[in-house]
Amino acid sequence: MSRTIRFAKAGGPEVLEFIETQVPAPGPSEVRIEVKAIGINRAESMWRLDDYVEPVKYPAGLGYEAAGIVDAVGTNVTGIAVGDKVGVMPSFSMNQYSTYGEVIIVPDHAVVKHPESLSFEEAASIWMMFVTAYGALIEDARVGKGDFVIVPAASSSVGLAAIQLANYAGATPIALTRTSGKRKQLLDAGAAHVIATEEVDLLQEVMRITDGKGARVAFDPVGGPNFAKLISALSFGGIAYIYGALSADATPLPVLEMIAKVITVKAHNIWLTSGDETRRKAAVEFVLKGIESGALKPVIDRKFRFDDMVEVHRYLETNAQFGKIVVTV
Amino acid sequence: MSRTIRFAKAGGPEVLEFIETQVPAPGPSEVRIEVKAIGINRAESMWRLDDYVEPVKYPAGLGYEAAGIVDAVGTNVTGIAVGDKVGVMPSFSMNQYSTYGEVIIVPDHAVVKHPESLSFEEAASIWMMFVTAYGALIEDARVGKGDFVIVPAASSSVGLAAIQLANYAGATPIALTRTSGKRKQLLDAGAAHVIATEEVDLLQEVMRITDGKGARVAFDPVGGPNFAKLISALSFGGIAYIYGALSADATPLPVLEMIAKVITVKAHNIWLTSGDETRRKAAVEFVLKGIESGALKPVIDRKFRFDDMVEVHRYLETNAQFGKIVVTV
Repeated sequence: MSRTIRFAKAGGPEVLEFIETQVPAPGPSEVRIEVKAIGINRAESMWRLDDYVEPVKYPAGLGYEAAGIVDAVGTNVTGIAVGDKVGVMPSFSMNQYSTYGEVIIVPDHAVVKHPESLSFEEAASIWMMFVTAYGALIEDARVGKGDFVIVPAASSSVGLAAIQLANYAGATPIALTRTSGKRKQLLDAGAAHVIATEEVDLLQEVMRITDGKGARVAFDPVGGPNFAKLISALSFGGIAYIYGALSADATPLPVLEMIAKVITVKAHNIWLTSGDETRRKAAVEFVLKGIESGALKPVIDRKFRFDDMVEVHRYLETNAQFGKIVVTV
Repeated sequence: MSRTIRFAKAGGPEVLEFIETQVPAPGPSEVRIEVKAIGINRAESMWRLDDYVEPVKYPAGLGYEAAGIVDAVGTNVTGIAVGDKVGVMPSFSMNQYSTYGEVIIVPDHAVVKHPESLSFEEAASIWMMFVTAYGALIEDARVGKGDFVIVPAASSSVGLAAIQLANYAGATPIALTRTSGKRKQLLDAGAAHVIATEEVDLLQEVMRITDGKGARVAFDPVGGPNFAKLISALSFGGIAYIYGALSADATPLPVLEMIAKVITVKAHNIWLTSGDETRRKAAVEFVLKGIESGALKPVIDRKFRFDDMVEVHRYLETNAQFGKIVVTV
């Protein structure tokens, strides 16, 4: 028997319940993992509120990331063996699979073996953040020298990954944060510029930084009324990625301005990359190489224990963290 | 001396004034044209209201399209000679050049020689409509067999061009119109399906037509609150082009739905194609070949006289037309 976390109805962190279950043998293309660490994502809080990209089927599990030791593999699984140290890359619906458990089952395509140099906490932290940002900035926009990249919610794990990836690719990251409180941390994390959006004018600052040209890319998990400001801060032909909806307000488009500058808005998610075998493999290789070189680094904000998951979700929703929240099991 | 139309302040159709001017010799890379016909576009009404993609500098001319006979060419101009029958492709700012005049000067890159088979009225009608739709549907989205294309404001000249181009490429055009009034005309014009958006549910109809999959492309000049419905009617990975802002209301994005379906919104305008020499030439070749084959046809709603330009703009703003309004000079 092992413990897993489920919820029977949408609601606050208190809906999360610890359940004793007997996790079955994995199906033919599945892998069972003895979990050592769980990476926590904002998506899971939206999921718990039934406010995510698909409706929740109850009772539901939750969790996209984890790392641990393989303890059983399905009959069709190749390349992964019992005893391997692995991480889980988000590439499934939480209605089908989830990672908040002491023992979990995930589809084999989501399982990534990692080098000994990575701790379980790190292996549970890197895939959502780096592959989400990689899919937009590296695969799609192909940012490079001369490009400015605006990163709203820069202190989030995906935001910090975007800063690191922009630097790794030779581009210039501009971090957005509400107040100056995290300015120094963001500069230390690689931001070339930090704009405190509640203190200065975003558009004016971006234009100053980019010599009036605007940034080629924005990579936004927020939306809402500020999204139009990001578009104003883009250069001719610029791209605004939107990969989240943290704002509860409407996200209106400045249509005429977009037409004049031929702006593209791309809704983005990690599955574009993680759901395709070739692209997923290229992403894993790129990220592991970046980590090995020191250019990419997991940023862990705080570690919690599995028993504290309700508190973890409360903390997650304060938006006070800088980087990734990790739960050890 | 010849007459040209200008306006000294933004306002209704009555701000248009006829001015007697001596049109000078063309500059080195310019062409002077004795105008025979002028194609009228909705853009010019937005321009007259100073509600277009760039601010108006007064006193201003207006007009993107015309056809006529070359009567002088600049010293650097090659491939165009006095006496040629030519049309004008929108590829300039109306703050610099304009076509509402008996004699006009335009940049040489905007001048397209046309075959004898085209009348001046036709040559003044085809470039905005076909190249705008071509740039999105053919160049960018590469629509083809199996693709459904949603065409809002389908009775507009660009809408009708999109219907023809979708058919020409083997795709299936779904025309949107407010009421059933123009249904028969739209079917006759090539629409495979017509949805009267004030009479039936757009999303339900598109899903019925596409067997629940949604359309791969929408090509919209309206925006406003209905834009979110277009996005709902797209398939996974679908693209919504927006090339106008006819709606006065805000255009909010359904962000989470877009993320789930990885939708792209592309602001679009004709300059992407007409402003690039290689792409412009390919577009001209494609459109002339389509016209020659009979697959593409100008659709002229009504002809007016040059003297009636104020009335032309009043008529333009009723949105009652089906196809292009042309003024003969």
